[in-house]
Amino acid sequence: MATHMTPDEFRRHGYAVVDWIADYWSTLDQRPVTSADPPGTVAARLPAGPPEQGEPFDRLLADLDTVIAPGLTHWQHPRFFGYFPANTSGPSVLGDLLSAGLGVQGMLWSTSPACTEVETVVLDWLAELLDLPARFRSTGPGGGVIQDSASSAILIAILAALHRAGGGRWRGHGVERAYRVYTSTQGHSAIEKAVRIAGLGDAGLRTVAVDPETLALDPAALRTAIEADLAAGLVPAAVVATIGTTSTNAIDPIPAIGELCREYGLWLHVDAAYAGSAAVCPELRWSHAGLEYADSYCFDPHKWLLTGFDCDAFWVADRAELVAALTVLPEYLRNAATESGAVLDYRDWQVSLGRRFRALKLWFVLRWYGAEGLRAHIREAVALADRFAAWVRADERFEVVGAHPFALVCFRLRPTGDDDADDVANAELLSRVNATGRAYLTHTRVGGRYTLRLVVGSPYTREEHVAQTWRLIGDTAAALPSRPS
Amino acid sequence: MATHMTPDEFRRHGYAVVDWIADYWSTLDQRPVTSADPPGTVAARLPAGPPEQGEPFDRLLADLDTVIAPGLTHWQHPRFFGYFPANTSGPSVLGDLLSAGLGVQGMLWSTSPACTEVETVVLDWLAELLDLPARFRSTGPGGGVIQDSASSAILIAILAALHRAGGGRWRGHGVERAYRVYTSTQGHSAIEKAVRIAGLGDAGLRTVAVDPETLALDPAALRTAIEADLAAGLVPAAVVATIGTTSTNAIDPIPAIGELCREYGLWLHVDAAYAGSAAVCPELRWSHAGLEYADSYCFDPHKWLLTGFDCDAFWVADRAELVAALTVLPEYLRNAATESGAVLDYRDWQVSLGRRFRALKLWFVLRWYGAEGLRAHIREAVALADRFAAWVRADERFEVVGAHPFALVCFRLRPTGDDDADDVANAELLSRVNATGRAYLTHTRVGGRYTLRLVVGSPYTREEHVAQTWRLIGDTAAALPSRPS
Ligand SMILES: Cc1ncc(COP(=O)(O)O)c(C=O)c1O
Ligand SMILES: Cc1ncc(COP(=O)(O)O)c(C=O)c1O
Repeated sequence: MATHMTPDEFRRHGYAVVDWIADYWSTLDQRPVTSADPPGTVAARLPAGPPEQGEPFDRLLADLDTVIAPGLTHWQHPRFFGYFPANTSGPSVLGDLLSAGLGVQGMLWSTSPACTEVETVVLDWLAELLDLPARFRSTGPGGGVIQDSASSAILIAILAALHRAGGGRWRGHGVERAYRVYTSTQGHSAIEKAVRIAGLGDAGLRTVAVDPETLALDPAALRTAIEADLAAGLVPAAVVATIGTTSTNAIDPIPAIGELCREYGLWLHVDAAYAGSAAVCPELRWSHAGLEYADSYCFDPHKWLLTGFDCDAFWVADRAELVAALTVLPEYLRNAATESGAVLDYRDWQVSLGRRFRALKLWFVLRWYGAEGLRAHIREAVALADRFAAWVRADERFEVVGAHPFALVCFRLRPTGDDDADDVANAELLSRVNATGRAYLTHTRVGGRYTLRLVVGSPYTREEHVAQTWRLIGDTAAALPSRPS
Repeated sequence: MATHMTPDEFRRHGYAVVDWIADYWSTLDQRPVTSADPPGTVAARLPAGPPEQGEPFDRLLADLDTVIAPGLTHWQHPRFFGYFPANTSGPSVLGDLLSAGLGVQGMLWSTSPACTEVETVVLDWLAELLDLPARFRSTGPGGGVIQDSASSAILIAILAALHRAGGGRWRGHGVERAYRVYTSTQGHSAIEKAVRIAGLGDAGLRTVAVDPETLALDPAALRTAIEADLAAGLVPAAVVATIGTTSTNAIDPIPAIGELCREYGLWLHVDAAYAGSAAVCPELRWSHAGLEYADSYCFDPHKWLLTGFDCDAFWVADRAELVAALTVLPEYLRNAATESGAVLDYRDWQVSLGRRFRALKLWFVLRWYGAEGLRAHIREAVALADRFAAWVRADERFEVVGAHPFALVCFRLRPTGDDDADDVANAELLSRVNATGRAYLTHTRVGGRYTLRLVVGSPYTREEHVAQTWRLIGDTAAALPSRPS
């Protein structure tokens, strides 16, 4: 009968898995980036029910090759340029493996002191690396914590904002539906979702107009929206501003937004999910101007800082507000350390109670690469994106759409005047490129028009991969049905 | 300068990490279960800032021994009997390692079909293993999904309940503060937290009285509470019932609660975070009677089914309701598969957008152990807990508190009549036992009185460890200041 894996079996199978991963990484280049199989293909390869007897490990590993790998989109593939590419790395995977092996649960300081203390220290390190305002450091009233995702960080920020806006009544009596949260029309859908989860409904979110050129939030429009809501008896509570929007990497004017938040007493959360990592490079830190106004800030090391999903780094300027909003203390969680007030209990900083030792992977990444290794990774992606944009610009069939301050380039076929036909052509171009399995890009709409996005980010991407993809795009465009010009 | 870890470096360091974990598991027994170091000890061992240059991997691994391990509570230790012990295993760790190595992101079916399809199938398998009602299977209108934790599952269930209670208005217009959610006084604090996050405030939760003997929710009291709220113009929306409460493993009477939910049109979520795993054993399935009334159900394989944190298995009877509540579809996430309606996009089943390939570890666990291996694990823990309870009962200095249907035994020093003195003595007993570092238990209060909890669950726990701990408890009790009797 199947029993627990012995330490020796674990060694043997563990080596095999490590080898499998090393081989996977070495052969990424040769795999199609995505699967062309229709829905249900993977499920059909699996037995209808669970096995009664245990199976040998080799059979599990074999199924990785035959069942799983063919049904994956390879997010680390050197020619994966969609969304924001996965950004894991050897040290991240090994830090995560140690976390899984240790299996500790850091809901309270007392349930594994190292789990909490390493996290606090590493988030302070990261704040230093990004040169974040001093108020976010744990040595003052602020502090950082790891969330699973920017979505959760945004939700937590909004909850703390509602608690503050209600002078504490939120916690006892619930949300006033009169509260309003503001973001630009380009804010991520996670903001809409968080506002909904928090009980404000879609009506609770105001999407503020952007500058039509930069797609950055227009502070004059924000003031108008706040004033209109105040006049209507509504209660402006929070602004979620973005550094590096998902669609186009627009950068909201944080200093002007911050001034408005101060004037009207709103919580300012800054979502730099993708672009935050860029701040490890001094030459890109201009993008973070005004952060001293923020009550909270987050970015995803899993989006661009060589750390595996899930790892969102979230800071608050006043951790006491956050804890006051979220804490619940049943008898079975009482303990002397918590009562002493000398420790942080991170369960009060997040939705869930339980938590993994996610700081290990981040600690490993920061130490393996060092600040200079992290900067090199960012710089290489920015340089390759610049090169791609130059190629697009030099080809008269295409145009680059807007600025590309980081490593996302938006582009499309040069407009013909017939918007609908152009949209169809661009969508067809994307669909044909992706169908080859040789590269993967995603799309957005800019000014209502279908636009392709290419993000350089995978640590495996070299200039040749960008060049191959550009050639593929060009060849595919050449084969499209001809358009009026 | 530090660069990416090559595949060969990854192999070498990966083997070393696998060895480290195998050694860690083999030496757990010899480690103190908890750390006695005061707050700040680990932080003080870390440099004040991040390194400028990368460091060799060996140095990272060395710090595991010198900095990290001494600051941990070892949740897999054979003498860890607190909370609910960690339940990871070799196959879980290796499945998780593969997930980290693959680094795919399953927010949409299309972003990695295998990630979604394996999850759907494995949750169907798990529903079969636990003999859950057919309505939860994905082959009908229901389906399962992995959440990080029972806390998140409860939150999601409550959001879907609010959406349904408001006939869809919740999503557009926000929460009515008149909605009420019910649970017993013994419901987990995650319910209070979820109700607060959902915008109902602490006032939105009604804690219903329990039977003083069994500590199970009293259906008559639930009916009274619902009627009183209706009479006051409030809107009963959901009940969260528990199979196996955290404090004492009380089992709420699901059939009677289910009847009430049907009568009044309330959403029934059943939280079996810990005890759900027991249902793999036919002889323990009586605990799940009435589940056919549930609109949603969750349990944590990470609490007792040999799977590493985080892994909560959550099912709904009607997935369309859940998706309607939570979906948000910005342009950059549109894709042909989603629009075809032929696939599940799990981002609409959870708070976050992004998601790891957590199904891999569960799939590995179910296959490595097989149904019979899982049953053996549950049965061994129940048998050891029974043995412990028998020892306690046979010792006239102690008493067992209530029933112990699974592997949690509540016990305390036999009451003297002076409740306050008894509480002090029991607290002192726990504190002295834990201070030895030779075992770890936690506490709760039953009927207001300080009570010790011992949960058998670690796969490393054998009878000798329970026996050693019982001797330690007895010896420690003997050394306590004498009490009147
Ligand atoms: C600007 C921005 N915010 C938030 C998110 C949501 O990220 P997560 O998956 O970490 O919740 C994204 C994801 O692309 C993003 O680009
Ligand atoms: C009955 C019950 N529900 C919910 C939870 C919360 O679990 P999680 O850490 O998975 O959120 C627990 C944790 O002990 C529990 O025992």
